Amino acid sequence: MRTLTVDLAERSYPIHIGAGILENPELFGPHLQSRKVAIVSNTTVAPLYLERVRNALRGHELTEIILPDGEAYKDWPTLQMIFDGLLKDRHDRKTTLIALGGGVTGDMTGFAAACYQRGVGFIQVPTTLLSQVDSSVGGKTGINHPLGKNMIGAFYQPKAVIIDTATLTTLPPRELAAGLAEVIKYGLICDADFLGWLERHMQDLNRLEPEALTEAIERSCQAKARVVAEDERESGIRAILNLGHTFGHAIETEMGYGNWLHGEAVAAGTVMALHMSQQLGWITDEAVRRAVALLKQAKLPVVPPAGMQAADFLRHMAVDKKALDGQIRLVLLERIGEALVTADYPAALLAAVLQADYETLTAAC
Amino acid sequence: MRTLTVDLAERSYPIHIGAGILENPELFGPHLQSRKVAIVSNTTVAPLYLERVRNALRGHELTEIILPDGEAYKDWPTLQMIFDGLLKDRHDRKTTLIALGGGVTGDMTGFAAACYQRGVGFIQVPTTLLSQVDSSVGGKTGINHPLGKNMIGAFYQPKAVIIDTATLTTLPPRELAAGLAEVIKYGLICDADFLGWLERHMQDLNRLEPEALTEAIERSCQAKARVVAEDERESGIRAILNLGHTFGHAIETEMGYGNWLHGEAVAAGTVMALHMSQQLGWITDEAVRRAVALLKQAKLPVVPPAGMQAADFLRHMAVDKKALDGQIRLVLLERIGEALVTADYPAALLAAVLQADYETLTAAC
Repeated sequence: MRTLTVDLAERSYPIHIGAGILENPELFGPHLQSRKVAIVSNTTVAPLYLERVRNALRGHELTEIILPDGEAYKDWPTLQMIFDGLLKDRHDRKTTLIALGGGVTGDMTGFAAACYQRGVGFIQVPTTLLSQVDSSVGGKTGINHPLGKNMIGAFYQPKAVIIDTATLTTLPPRELAAGLAEVIKYGLICDADFLGWLERHMQDLNRLEPEALTEAIERSCQAKARVVAEDERESGIRAILNLGHTFGHAIETEMGYGNWLHGEAVAAGTVMALHMSQQLGWITDEAVRRAVALLKQAKLPVVPPAGMQAADFLRHMAVDKKALDGQIRLVLLERIGEALVTADYPAALLAAVLQADYETLTAAC
Repeated sequence: MRTLTVDLAERSYPIHIGAGILENPELFGPHLQSRKVAIVSNTTVAPLYLERVRNALRGHELTEIILPDGEAYKDWPTLQMIFDGLLKDRHDRKTTLIALGGGVTGDMTGFAAACYQRGVGFIQVPTTLLSQVDSSVGGKTGINHPLGKNMIGAFYQPKAVIIDTATLTTLPPRELAAGLAEVIKYGLICDADFLGWLERHMQDLNRLEPEALTEAIERSCQAKARVVAEDERESGIRAILNLGHTFGHAIETEMGYGNWLHGEAVAAGTVMALHMSQQLGWITDEAVRRAVALLKQAKLPVVPPAGMQAADFLRHMAVDKKALDGQIRLVLLERIGEALVTADYPAALLAAVLQADYETLTAAC
């Protein structure tokens, strides 16, 4: 097992990464404040792993709250199921919520913890690659609104994150790929050396080779933790973590939540952001080619949805949280391993990027 | 106009108190981050004061969100009206929410600001005495759950509070009295000198004498600010602000939200807490008599609802946020001007206090 610390002064917390650590009571114990604990999971993950977490929490009074699975349920009525469960079992301010599942479970449980009695503790046990490398670090929690993704939420840090790499053996291949989109992103935005490592080890990751998984997850969490430590509330540098996300959120919203996985939309969005960076003369054709090849190796889409028009993108991008006073700010690359956030580009260039022929552009990579 | 500062490091903010200051653009301007501003009010207050706030915000793009009035609407569907209004008008992270109304409007708008895009700015313009002396300081925001009051919320500080004492001229007398319950509370828990001032000036306050109102509001906010500055997240001393509230919340819940006003329930609850303090030998009969007489002078109930049994109290008190691991913690007085929080008392004494004959006990005061 490896442990890294996300350094946020009095809100610092450990991330433990290893195979089979889900059942280890010693990883949970130090973070529980009372006998009452609530495990929040979903209908897919609970049958696979709930029993093991239950074992780790023997001696505690457990409330188990099983939510329906999927981004479509990242909404208020489902969040309410958590509050109902806590209140029915009379959990007070010293309770701890444990999120067992993917990003949706983590975001909702974290937001429930942020709001329940104005804030109780929570522990993340992410069971998808995406949530392990993305939502374990950064404290973003929340739910969707019919008019936009993640529009209602809070910045709220967990007491600990417990990442059991063995849970990835039951993850559908498409979701593994979606997680790899974020892993590749860290290489692109802030760690050129890690990008080289990924080019050499993508086959190992596809095969779920345990050592490679641990290494990739640790380096991804470290990269994100470095960025978040500098800018906890996303006022500046942290926005670089959204490479591909402004385009990607537009794709997710246009296609309806859940039809394109978040990581898939980010992958196609990353290609668009890289194409734009190349058109601005910042990165080379070769850099774009490397990134596209790596995304393809990870079995990710590199082309936006057929038929999605520039106007469709713009409509969704204008309400994106990264828009400031109507200006669309984008994360672009200055070079491999170095990103920046800017709204200073010709509008015509964005229009051209939204209309480019990505089938042709990516065919040869 | 008087201004005091609530000292919370980088979250410090000013409270302005004066007659007619609602229309002063200079009090709003420094706290707005973009042209977009949303005013949240309710169907009772908007017809009286919205136009004046609108004048103070000339030159801004205003979204006006008018909620139904009353504690019964301090719920999720009503909160959702705020999010809907913000998203329809495409407010981004730099927007500012202005809460124009009483405690419910302030709590809901503050919670909406805490959650919208994970946090935007808000300004409180409280128009009831209760909200002016209570919710303007402390950063408590939230909504109710069918199983308990204020169960879902956040600690979130405003950018500024603007208290226009002239708004109290349109406040129903019962609500003025409810506000006075909290004013009296500050004297009891931490300012014996202020309690003496109140005994001398209660008639002026009942008559809405402007200088007396400003003085009482300022001293109440100062008292609360002192306590909150020591303990922003209510881990210790801050709990003394809940004198009468544990009993009071039980009364409110039992009677149904809104049938007893919050301040009325707190007044009766305060008498119970003082009776208990006296039974423990901490305060004199004379101290109880003074407090009861002052509450009566403020036209507040000093007796719990007829027919409400000890079992009814206990059922609601056990899920109160001040319960820790099932122990019911109470705020009691050691002497006038000095409160403490304790769960260390004979259970039989609490039972006796819940069953005492308050009609007889308070008749002579």
